[in-house]
Amino acid sequence: MKKVSDAVIRRLPKYYRHLAELEREGVEKISSSELSKKMGLNASQIRQDFNCFGGFGQQGFGYYVKVLKGEIQSILGLKNRYNAIIVGMGNIGQALASYDNFAREGFFVLGAFDVSKDLVGRSVKGVSIMPMEQMKGFVEQNDVNLGIICTPEQYAAQTAQMLSDCGVKAIWNFAPIDIQMESTIVENVHLSDSLYILSYRINEQMRLDDTKE
Amino acid sequence: MKKVSDAVIRRLPKYYRHLAELEREGVEKISSSELSKKMGLNASQIRQDFNCFGGFGQQGFGYYVKVLKGEIQSILGLKNRYNAIIVGMGNIGQALASYDNFAREGFFVLGAFDVSKDLVGRSVKGVSIMPMEQMKGFVEQNDVNLGIICTPEQYAAQTAQMLSDCGVKAIWNFAPIDIQMESTIVENVHLSDSLYILSYRINEQMRLDDTKE
Repeated sequence: MKKVSDAVIRRLPKYYRHLAELEREGVEKISSSELSKKMGLNASQIRQDFNCFGGFGQQGFGYYVKVLKGEIQSILGLKNRYNAIIVGMGNIGQALASYDNFAREGFFVLGAFDVSKDLVGRSVKGVSIMPMEQMKGFVEQNDVNLGIICTPEQYAAQTAQMLSDCGVKAIWNFAPIDIQMESTIVENVHLSDSLYILSYRINEQMRLDDTKE
Repeated sequence: MKKVSDAVIRRLPKYYRHLAELEREGVEKISSSELSKKMGLNASQIRQDFNCFGGFGQQGFGYYVKVLKGEIQSILGLKNRYNAIIVGMGNIGQALASYDNFAREGFFVLGAFDVSKDLVGRSVKGVSIMPMEQMKGFVEQNDVNLGIICTPEQYAAQTAQMLSDCGVKAIWNFAPIDIQMESTIVENVHLSDSLYILSYRINEQMRLDDTKE
């Protein structure tokens, strides 16, 4: 498979979500123009994106929802199983440990780690909280390939390094700081970004309302 | 101010984050090429983006970090105060109620609502959980302009409608479903999207490793 651009890859989860929704609604077939309306993209963009992976359809015929969803699921690697650990079991860590939706797609949280003596030894929804020193052994024994960072901002970089040293190949970072690593895959989640977009929109709306008056 | 494209607006929080980081590090001035390296964007893109808002700098001179951060903070509406409520006080709702970082930028969670009799009457980090029937009165009395949806997927759409009927102008949706409304501003947060990008990258890495062998 040839190298696909980052922008296309970042749209794949959105396609997957919309197709899963169509499947749940019982829709069997959809044209690229119907899909484009639903997703707020234009139809030629959709056809171009799909062409990066060899097409999936015949011009003028549309797509079978279930087949297309399956293809994108494969491309995203969502037919595999991933073993995850959470580091930092404050509020966000505990919320993620309790969130069932990830397991539906093959992401299993097998354990959690924290520096706090109050937290170590407890468990959240069946996920045990262990001391940091046990991380390396746990990662090796359980074939952990995903580390979820939920520590405070100031510990995030060293936690990422520790996960990488333990052999974890991919990091999902919820600490509000950008982590960049050479040899480890990182996705930085910035919850505030969408909050700031909202405040922009609220102010834009207020400016429009002022102009109308 | 003229209408700015969605893509530019969506980059503003990223500029804001990086400039805040530079400010914390004590950096006073930065050129667009230094900023571009730090952010992984190209320099002409950055200059174009800033030109949408009238520039902020002089060609060849660079930007004062503090001034530029302040400008973007204003544009994003982050110098105002926002009053928020959370609907759905499961794990994600409780985590958001406990998350201090939002208050730093002027977003205050004043109350929470849930259908569960076990939760109503309790409070999380000083945020009281009230029954749904009290939402309208609370929104009016407290000038609430932001509703945060943390309900299960199947209740998200009706919750959005209820918030809108109560007069809430903006919705931050954490339920794993896209909400689209005519007269209310909505930002849908899809936590899984970045998780799917990670699984794509993990598989891409495995394919590369296979090719090398």
